[in-house]
Amino acid sequence: MRPSKRAADELRPVTLERAVSKHAEGSCLVKFGDTHVLCTASLEERVPPWLRGQQRGWVTAEYGMLPRSTGGRMRREASTGKQSGRTQEIQRLIGRSLRAIVDLEALGEVQITVDCDVIQADGGTRTAAITGAWIALRDCIDWMRARDMVKKDPLKDHIAAISCGIYNGAPVLDLDYAEDSTAETDANFVMTGSGGIVEIQGTAEGAPFSEEEFAQLMGLAKTGIGRLIDLQKMAIL
Amino acid sequence: MRPSKRAADELRPVTLERAVSKHAEGSCLVKFGDTHVLCTASLEERVPPWLRGQQRGWVTAEYGMLPRSTGGRMRREASTGKQSGRTQEIQRLIGRSLRAIVDLEALGEVQITVDCDVIQADGGTRTAAITGAWIALRDCIDWMRARDMVKKDPLKDHIAAISCGIYNGAPVLDLDYAEDSTAETDANFVMTGSGGIVEIQGTAEGAPFSEEEFAQLMGLAKTGIGRLIDLQKMAIL
Amino acid sequence: MRPSKRAADELRPVTLERAVSKHAEGSCLVKFGDTHVLCTASLEERVPPWLRGQQRGWVTAEYGMLPRSTGGRMRREASTGKQSGRTQEIQRLIGRSLRAIVDLEALGEVQITVDCDVIQADGGTRTAAITGAWIALRDCIDWMRARDMVKKDPLKDHIAAISCGIYNGAPVLDLDYAEDSTAETDANFVMTGSGGIVEIQGTAEGAPFSEEEFAQLMGLAKTGIGRLIDLQKMAIL
Amino acid sequence: MRPSKRAADELRPVTLERAVSKHAEGSCLVKFGDTHVLCTASLEERVPPWLRGQQRGWVTAEYGMLPRSTGGRMRREASTGKQSGRTQEIQRLIGRSLRAIVDLEALGEVQITVDCDVIQADGGTRTAAITGAWIALRDCIDWMRARDMVKKDPLKDHIAAISCGIYNGAPVLDLDYAEDSTAETDANFVMTGSGGIVEIQGTAEGAPFSEEEFAQLMGLAKTGIGRLIDLQKMAIL
Amino acid sequence: MRPSKRAADELRPVTLERAVSKHAEGSCLVKFGDTHVLCTASLEERVPPWLRGQQRGWVTAEYGMLPRSTGGRMRREASTGKQSGRTQEIQRLIGRSLRAIVDLEALGEVQITVDCDVIQADGGTRTAAITGAWIALRDCIDWMRARDMVKKDPLKDHIAAISCGIYNGAPVLDLDYAEDSTAETDANFVMTGSGGIVEIQGTAEGAPFSEEEFAQLMGLAKTGIGRLIDLQKMAIL
Amino acid sequence: MRPSKRAADELRPVTLERAVSKHAEGSCLVKFGDTHVLCTASLEERVPPWLRGQQRGWVTAEYGMLPRSTGGRMRREASTGKQSGRTQEIQRLIGRSLRAIVDLEALGEVQITVDCDVIQADGGTRTAAITGAWIALRDCIDWMRARDMVKKDPLKDHIAAISCGIYNGAPVLDLDYAEDSTAETDANFVMTGSGGIVEIQGTAEGAPFSEEEFAQLMGLAKTGIGRLIDLQKMAIL
Repeated sequence: MRPSKRAADELRPVTLERAVSKHAEGSCLVKFGDTHVLCTASLEERVPPWLRGQQRGWVTAEYGMLPRSTGGRMRREASTGKQSGRTQEIQRLIGRSLRAIVDLEALGEVQITVDCDVIQADGGTRTAAITGAWIALRDCIDWMRARDMVKKDPLKDHIAAISCGIYNGAPVLDLDYAEDSTAETDANFVMTGSGGIVEIQGTAEGAPFSEEEFAQLMGLAKTGIGRLIDLQKMAIL
Repeated sequence: MRPSKRAADELRPVTLERAVSKHAEGSCLVKFGDTHVLCTASLEERVPPWLRGQQRGWVTAEYGMLPRSTGGRMRREASTGKQSGRTQEIQRLIGRSLRAIVDLEALGEVQITVDCDVIQADGGTRTAAITGAWIALRDCIDWMRARDMVKKDPLKDHIAAISCGIYNGAPVLDLDYAEDSTAETDANFVMTGSGGIVEIQGTAEGAPFSEEEFAQLMGLAKTGIGRLIDLQKMAIL
Repeated sequence: MRPSKRAADELRPVTLERAVSKHAEGSCLVKFGDTHVLCTASLEERVPPWLRGQQRGWVTAEYGMLPRSTGGRMRREASTGKQSGRTQEIQRLIGRSLRAIVDLEALGEVQITVDCDVIQADGGTRTAAITGAWIALRDCIDWMRARDMVKKDPLKDHIAAISCGIYNGAPVLDLDYAEDSTAETDANFVMTGSGGIVEIQGTAEGAPFSEEEFAQLMGLAKTGIGRLIDLQKMAIL
Repeated sequence: MRPSKRAADELRPVTLERAVSKHAEGSCLVKFGDTHVLCTASLEERVPPWLRGQQRGWVTAEYGMLPRSTGGRMRREASTGKQSGRTQEIQRLIGRSLRAIVDLEALGEVQITVDCDVIQADGGTRTAAITGAWIALRDCIDWMRARDMVKKDPLKDHIAAISCGIYNGAPVLDLDYAEDSTAETDANFVMTGSGGIVEIQGTAEGAPFSEEEFAQLMGLAKTGIGRLIDLQKMAIL
Repeated sequence: MRPSKRAADELRPVTLERAVSKHAEGSCLVKFGDTHVLCTASLEERVPPWLRGQQRGWVTAEYGMLPRSTGGRMRREASTGKQSGRTQEIQRLIGRSLRAIVDLEALGEVQITVDCDVIQADGGTRTAAITGAWIALRDCIDWMRARDMVKKDPLKDHIAAISCGIYNGAPVLDLDYAEDSTAETDANFVMTGSGGIVEIQGTAEGAPFSEEEFAQLMGLAKTGIGRLIDLQKMAIL
Repeated sequence: MRPSKRAADELRPVTLERAVSKHAEGSCLVKFGDTHVLCTASLEERVPPWLRGQQRGWVTAEYGMLPRSTGGRMRREASTGKQSGRTQEIQRLIGRSLRAIVDLEALGEVQITVDCDVIQADGGTRTAAITGAWIALRDCIDWMRARDMVKKDPLKDHIAAISCGIYNGAPVLDLDYAEDSTAETDANFVMTGSGGIVEIQGTAEGAPFSEEEFAQLMGLAKTGIGRLIDLQKMAIL
């Protein structure tokens, strides 16, 4: 039995609220249960130095947690003076995931930065962030299209992410914090709307896991991501 | 005529939403029009090193802006590796303002950190932060009282803050960004529920101002802060 | 009775020694009693990036304290690797104050940096710094005029600053360290030669203060700043 | 055809040279073809603060690249003042992998730090590092056992790692730099001697990959890691 | 002919002004011509962590230059966030030189930090700093002796320093900036009152120098340091 | 008697292994007994900003120690976020030494960076680094000559370095760690193939040393450096 009474293949209630920012070209407040992440997409007419003059754009992401988004207060990274290894790992993952479904040539020589800020954390912040970031990116690109800034749609597909894990010996979908902190194995999957895999990260927290167990987690992930992409489609109707 | 059509002594619509965080001992989402600040109060059973063993507590504040809370995206301070002078100035101001109405002996040897994170900015973030921080602090202290952690109420009074300025030659209350960015004079006032002044900061952005002009600004501030404190009282009913 | 036996409206002995640096285009060693600040104005033929090509100049300030300028040795900021919030707050204040009396168009596309380094501290370092910085700036601009680098005098007025406070219940002028560390209220005023107000900063260290008390402090400040500007006039004769 | 003419399931020549450091308690110079990593295990009789007094030990890793280990010289991280996100990601991976096969209770209250410094890079530095780190750790623990510092062997299993990828449309084992820089998909696998999976990281560099492709990569990885563990066994004979 | 018209073995006018700081336990403003360095000795009743409990004290030094102590303004090290290699090299030299003439056991478990801040630079700042630091240290130790904090005098000897160099082919004593910036060879010598050598640093700026040339420089240095130590003796009479 | 049984004027076994890096334009693994330093020379077609457009090149050096190159593990400088004063001092010394024998005009507008990374330390790392760096630099410049990138040979001479010290009252050559850590006096000499002196650094660790003692150390150094330069000549045959 999961602490939240959910079935093994049951997501937390997921909501995707668009246009939550007065300033950003695209934005989404994504909630996976008690995990709330604010995603904003910011368009800038410049690219990183190593990309200049190549007629290609760039999509990148930054990730942060508000100090009291967690059970105990964490030190503010702006105050410690550096981003933790975990923060950097997550923002690199989000950026890679988004770039996998963007046609950077079609984007033109601009940069879109998607900021994913965790307002409240209860497990699965990186997967919520990727799922919400897609909405912010979609709206940012539509903002560009409405202004004829791109010739063809640079967004090639949907992208969404979910965690799975082995909790009390059983494979379960979409770990919340109570599960995540005691799961034996924790895996994150990032997949596209057409079912392609973009990222897999699996870690044995306790005992190593077997190939079969991993296959079960991947099966759950495919189900979950399918539902998330349906939710994305409804959100942008 | 103000860009927002407000009367000279008219506040923006102000809302104070309590208990917005699952984790924090006290929290408030404060809105002054399009300026939205999330305030969380975190209780920790430790004090700064220089206060140890003195049977006194401490109240401090940290301030941050989400990168796209503003019109153009700002660099994330966690990524630049340091907090700007402006950030430090504001968080020192919030901390001093809160300590002015807390009985630190009555608090006991604990620290309360109030994080004020700007979700969306449209001028007056520091004054909104102070006004909302009081609610978060009030609820955090009530959390302590419900657990018999304090003998008497350490909160001595209300505190709230507002900006005033000279815009197009006329003194106005509660500057929004459109006004703030072109005002000749900008002043912030922090006052208690009993009418005492805790902080005054006045700056001539263009031409110097006169003693009379400053007196007019202070008059507006007293009106505005009175209304804010009424709103605080309603919020905690 | 004040620790220094001064009358309530009496400044400490103030001296303004010009041309104390072999290298700087303008310099002043300012003493407010035992508070000694070395101010140097450095001219550079470049402006900050965001000002380039606009035919306007810039005036900025930096502030520092020698490690043993104070009663107990402080850690050297170059060694800790960052400037404290207090340092940044003060250098921003000095810069704003100076810019208030400079015609940046008339200055042309150059930058003047005024470094204010506290050799010995006994309260009131920021107000001494502003008062001395004006002399350094005046001499730096005269150095430019002697070389026909400006068409008209970019310096529009005098500027000087003083602190006031409520000490033992009474309003007093120009707090020294013994007073400053126990004053109930501490306020800094920056005013021009023509009596305009450029900056006001008032802080209740203990109990909040009233509007009347604040008016008394402003009255003292006007007297004190008047005297400081007379001293500046004598210094540049 | 692979640039190196290797068969799809062929490792580069792998060597594991033990005891290469005069000072370290365990050390190994591991070579996967032209990728050379020096691994040293250092024993310290202290643990991280959060682990003190719990009768458990800790194993951690640090990773670095010499500035000219790569084709073009990289900036020295000690000189830039921070470790890149990639560096932090890799050293976290190495540390987690090693802890997966260590009985931290049996280790006692000590810390072993395995430094993995890349002397020369040609792809696959993180997998070579994990494979070589196991030897350094094995020898460090034997050093402890020779001094009766542990009651039972804290090392529960072997651990090794290999990369696989889809290069020119075909799944291949142990990517070198020429392959890695153009591979469509890149995956790293960390497995134990008993065949358990400890870490999986798969990334689509270009088009997303399918579940079948991923299964093929995992098949290759099992073969490759089996061979690496045989080489570890021979090295410690 | 030297730019300053001095004879080859002639020092610049040297003054050693004591007790220039209201706060420091010992202080000296040393001038070697236009090079002015403020030296303050600060006593603290604590030692570095690695020295605790050993009944021995420590003497250390820090060095800094005011931003406009030089011909062109340098960036403030507190603002750049780190001390340059040159700064660190010099403060390590000053510290080593002072420790060479202090009996650290006799000092007891305290630390004396000598801050050497360059108010104005014209070559030879490190040698002036060492020479002035001795006075500050002497007075600080006398302050301790007046309070019976030490049983016997921990100061074993004088210490002073001078630069020499080959300028226009000829060996000269006490280089000023005009000489230093074009000298072929530059050497710094630190010696005790009894004639022992504590530090020698010689650098060929252009062509390498010979053993004979170096011997000539050492001869000049002995003469110069003898005079400096006579001046120290007069200063403390 | 020396701990290593060497004669007073006997070097440790010295080897200079060339071309140890697949990537670098020049490289050398230098061993002075158990002190092993990897030197790589990297050619870049850019110069520091202050040298641009002057038709001159630059040679610089960086120095680092692997964390467990020493008896006890040191913290990684990339992780502490800054290079120690010692590191900076050494890399400045290596850079100056190399520039003393390079004709920077003949080099053309390129920069050569020599990285000296200590793989294993047993005293004398800086002198080994300089001696090995010359080989890496020689090979890098020959790489340029083979590609007709320079018109005449920019390398004017050999350069090598050795330490000497007074150990147990006697002057000895090439201190190893056992000697270095207890020597009364420690001196480093850098000399050219034609016998010119480029750098001298002598430090009294305990009692000051005399002029005669220093002359003895210099005599030993000349002998030792002569032998090192013979070894360099043999290495590049």
